[in-house]
Amino acid sequence: MTAFVGVTDMVTWIARHGAETIMAEMADTIEADFRRWESFDKSERVANHTPFGVIELMPISDPDLYAFKYVNGHPFNPVRGFQTVTAFGVLADVHNGYPVFLAEMTLLTALRTAATSAMVARTLARPDSQVMAMIGAGSQAEFQALAFRAVLGIRTLRVYDVDEAASAKLVRNLAPRGFEVTVCASASEAAAGADIVTTCTADKAVAQVLTDADVAPGMHINTIGGDCPGKTELDPRILERGPVFVEYTPQTRIEGEIQNVAPDFPVTEFWRVLNGLDDGRTSPEQITIFDSVGFAIEDFSALRHLRASVAGTELSREIDLVAAPEDPKDLFGFTTVPVPVA
Amino acid sequence: MTAFVGVTDMVTWIARHGAETIMAEMADTIEADFRRWESFDKSERVANHTPFGVIELMPISDPDLYAFKYVNGHPFNPVRGFQTVTAFGVLADVHNGYPVFLAEMTLLTALRTAATSAMVARTLARPDSQVMAMIGAGSQAEFQALAFRAVLGIRTLRVYDVDEAASAKLVRNLAPRGFEVTVCASASEAAAGADIVTTCTADKAVAQVLTDADVAPGMHINTIGGDCPGKTELDPRILERGPVFVEYTPQTRIEGEIQNVAPDFPVTEFWRVLNGLDDGRTSPEQITIFDSVGFAIEDFSALRHLRASVAGTELSREIDLVAAPEDPKDLFGFTTVPVPVA
Repeated sequence: MTAFVGVTDMVTWIARHGAETIMAEMADTIEADFRRWESFDKSERVANHTPFGVIELMPISDPDLYAFKYVNGHPFNPVRGFQTVTAFGVLADVHNGYPVFLAEMTLLTALRTAATSAMVARTLARPDSQVMAMIGAGSQAEFQALAFRAVLGIRTLRVYDVDEAASAKLVRNLAPRGFEVTVCASASEAAAGADIVTTCTADKAVAQVLTDADVAPGMHINTIGGDCPGKTELDPRILERGPVFVEYTPQTRIEGEIQNVAPDFPVTEFWRVLNGLDDGRTSPEQITIFDSVGFAIEDFSALRHLRASVAGTELSREIDLVAAPEDPKDLFGFTTVPVPVA
Repeated sequence: MTAFVGVTDMVTWIARHGAETIMAEMADTIEADFRRWESFDKSERVANHTPFGVIELMPISDPDLYAFKYVNGHPFNPVRGFQTVTAFGVLADVHNGYPVFLAEMTLLTALRTAATSAMVARTLARPDSQVMAMIGAGSQAEFQALAFRAVLGIRTLRVYDVDEAASAKLVRNLAPRGFEVTVCASASEAAAGADIVTTCTADKAVAQVLTDADVAPGMHINTIGGDCPGKTELDPRILERGPVFVEYTPQTRIEGEIQNVAPDFPVTEFWRVLNGLDDGRTSPEQITIFDSVGFAIEDFSALRHLRASVAGTELSREIDLVAAPEDPKDLFGFTTVPVPVA
């Protein structure tokens, strides 16, 4: 049998442990897996593009465990009552190839994306950072805020979204949780005075939600929404202002902000910073840029974290996804055994 | 909610309709999808290779429906009590990216592989074919036999397997179902006098389970087991004896029998034969070779066939794989709603 964590189980899990605690612990799991980067068999994600959006499969494995995530991105979904992004994922045993764990990942991806952002900012942002600007107040925004509070202690937010209802929703969700939130009239206004700028918008376009003039010395820029071909958020001149850090270079060249600059534009893979192989931030005045597109290791980490946490609890159900014939060479005989009456 | 067809449901479905009827109908569904080949967005499968085997993801989409299959191949599994191949698959709605259907595919792959072989042989084998040699009597063998009877009327089998217990199992399963089965002492003996030769072995090696001397004029060769890099079944000289037909050329160059010949070795994509764009068999004496590796369209066809067949029945259960927040931009708010007591 394959363990299954559905949406109801996931909501219960988050309610039981708290999103902040989960993301703080998950940031450590992701960091641990980034540190052993070279032990993974990595591939670019495989994407099917359509006029409406994209559906992607993201596989990854280490010598013992294989993971993949299914994820879609459909920017016009919200106006039709659907989410922009939904996801689910699977862990499998590399030794026999059997899938062992299936989980909803719409919520888990929201947690791991924010945990990754905070994990990277812990190393790259100025240690005295106190104020975060958030450009985009969609599904991911509250998770980012909670992860940055859990990992970096950020409590002051300056928010801008083209949709005023989205900003109002963020205030409604976060003000009662002890954040000081200022809703701003523009991205420039939000960025003014911020130590960290998180851009997380859904428009499938080469946009400039943050301009060069908005960026001040010492900022850490955490750019989340530029994550597929033709979908970027930054004025490309920003990329010249300080070192650009990426997850996995071949994938980010295709999907990240750096798709808008030369193919040999210099970038640093973040796992190298964690392992002391390359510099991170070298001065308080430096501008650091994390060109995040989301990478399969983060899903691997999130799935193994979840699996360990729910193992043996009622949040891990079982489904009969894999046939288990008594004689592994007699699959046909297996189909002819009497079926129990339901 | 996402519809789910598990192993028990699939066994019931097969028992209810019969494997032969299902495969005959599925052959028509697969043929219909092959005929509209150019309407699909095709990719090579993405594979993670390990010392023990391989785990692959096979995505495909048409303008309305997306499918992918997870499948492993672990040749040493049977000696440890596991199956060589297990699989599951998903259909998703291209318009919003939501997964709508999840099914076990260990059994479904067995059905679609045999249905594809028979569908191709219906066009390429001599119409008067009566005897099939089967080299390899593993999990796939009975499905091949039943599909060839359903689609081509084949009732006489000549079987060889290095594992005598596997041949005995095939006789046990098929003799009571009206097949005339001869167990042979070698592949050469099995091939002698056969109109069709199906090779379906699991060894992960550049093997020659069929030699050039075994092949006689007029034969159709249906080679199934050569399906990943370093895993082939035919003496490469056989490929020079007659036209070689493939599913999707870029994938077969990597995974099929033709990996052992020149990269520009001429092949014909079978969908072109169905559409009258290229010749199939042109004489009774000709040797035809189907270098099958399994292609994503076949899984797409099998999944949509299954989905249509079980829709509205108790064989299609529901699982909560996709979060459905009332406000699609308020995923965080969704995680804080009260959870019903289980």
